[in-house]
Amino acid sequence: MPRQVSAFSNPTVKLLRSLRDKKARRAEGLFLAEGLRILTEARDSGRLPEIIAFSAEGARHPLAAEVIAATEAAGGDAIETTADILSKMSGKDNPQMVIGAYRQPETSLGRIDRSKAPLWIAVQALRDPGNLGTILRTGDAVGAGGLILLDDCADPYSVEAVRASMGAIFTQDVAAAPWAEFLSWLRAGEGQLVGTSLKASQDYLEAEYQRPCFLLIGNEQQGLPADYEAECDLLVKIPMAGRADSLNAAMAAAVMAFTIEASWR
Amino acid sequence: MPRQVSAFSNPTVKLLRSLRDKKARRAEGLFLAEGLRILTEARDSGRLPEIIAFSAEGARHPLAAEVIAATEAAGGDAIETTADILSKMSGKDNPQMVIGAYRQPETSLGRIDRSKAPLWIAVQALRDPGNLGTILRTGDAVGAGGLILLDDCADPYSVEAVRASMGAIFTQDVAAAPWAEFLSWLRAGEGQLVGTSLKASQDYLEAEYQRPCFLLIGNEQQGLPADYEAECDLLVKIPMAGRADSLNAAMAAAVMAFTIEASWR
Repeated sequence: MPRQVSAFSNPTVKLLRSLRDKKARRAEGLFLAEGLRILTEARDSGRLPEIIAFSAEGARHPLAAEVIAATEAAGGDAIETTADILSKMSGKDNPQMVIGAYRQPETSLGRIDRSKAPLWIAVQALRDPGNLGTILRTGDAVGAGGLILLDDCADPYSVEAVRASMGAIFTQDVAAAPWAEFLSWLRAGEGQLVGTSLKASQDYLEAEYQRPCFLLIGNEQQGLPADYEAECDLLVKIPMAGRADSLNAAMAAAVMAFTIEASWR
Repeated sequence: MPRQVSAFSNPTVKLLRSLRDKKARRAEGLFLAEGLRILTEARDSGRLPEIIAFSAEGARHPLAAEVIAATEAAGGDAIETTADILSKMSGKDNPQMVIGAYRQPETSLGRIDRSKAPLWIAVQALRDPGNLGTILRTGDAVGAGGLILLDDCADPYSVEAVRASMGAIFTQDVAAAPWAEFLSWLRAGEGQLVGTSLKASQDYLEAEYQRPCFLLIGNEQQGLPADYEAECDLLVKIPMAGRADSLNAAMAAAVMAFTIEASWR
């Protein structure tokens, strides 16, 4: 049976609140996901939270009741709490009625099975957690296998990234590695490394994309470093019609990913 | 000659600070844009601020000096101020060295010349200013003519939207109208209205897009209302490969806009 918790000083409440902070997430190995829709998607992907917190209103929803029961059946902790406490956990004025704390999966490259999907997205030094989450969501939509974080990226398990991923954090494999390690892993198997560059001469619509394809997206401000571009098997250009010289990183990822997918149909 | 201003109580400082607020933007008819790159792009597009504020460091940059001189030559007000005050204006800890207050253009549909560009993007009840700005940037990149805001959208002149637009707020035409007004304007001339819908049977890659094309993007949560979909000349579907049933609104706009543009090559 769920416990009733209404004190901010309760240790479980304090733990959940702490997970908005990256250090605490690292130390605990947990992250937060909010909202019935996402928690239900997580369960449908075989993932249950270790701790679930919900409002009385949340507990009355039949889908929420299912996720709560499944969490408890799997040995997880379920607490019914106040809207005020849920708000403090999520950092939002209108919090979701259900919040879960999930175990962070291990993120070594070894867990990526590149034969599982034709497309993988790799981002380099991507700093905006909203962009990371949006790219995860795009990856899910386009049928990519997952997201590989190169060098110093934002935390994909931050509340902002998880929120923007709209549940894709549970369906996309996530790995993290420095560039050199990624490159030697990549070259130990099949895979075409595709970068976008303003300096490329080949139009993105006319290139030939091979499976498995690793789409490489650079930092929001700097784009890809020149020596990273030099390692690409294919460098393509998205022509810019207007005054601006680039697309938002998440937009470039979406346009490229859908174009690559379309080229295989 | 620029004035030196270091008091928060200075009326110009107060005016510029107030422009982070929508009501003040409406009342003054002004909006803020930050950063040398964007102010330079604005000037290159023929737009100068009515007021320009900058740090001593900012004034030393030759490009900034050009924009400051051009602003004063055009009768604008130039103030040199402190990093602290610039920070309060922009709402950021590390403010840009140059901030301009620009006149908001009039946004009636009458100012849209649909023959000017093959593609126009229309958004309906889009609530996130970052999404609005990103769609403006995408529109600029793909060669769209501008953005039409339908019903109750976020303010394209908010600091967040202008920042995400990366200067495209100055190159894309912006209009706003209720749906019924837009529809009668649209039908008074040429134009194919294209919506995306999960219920559509036609794949977005197999559709025939006609110029001028009006790409219609719905609200982030609800998508397009059914009666708006019913008015579309073409409804297409972006197939979703994963668990999620939709793309982020700005991603859908980017994928559709680049696909439409590509279909005309």
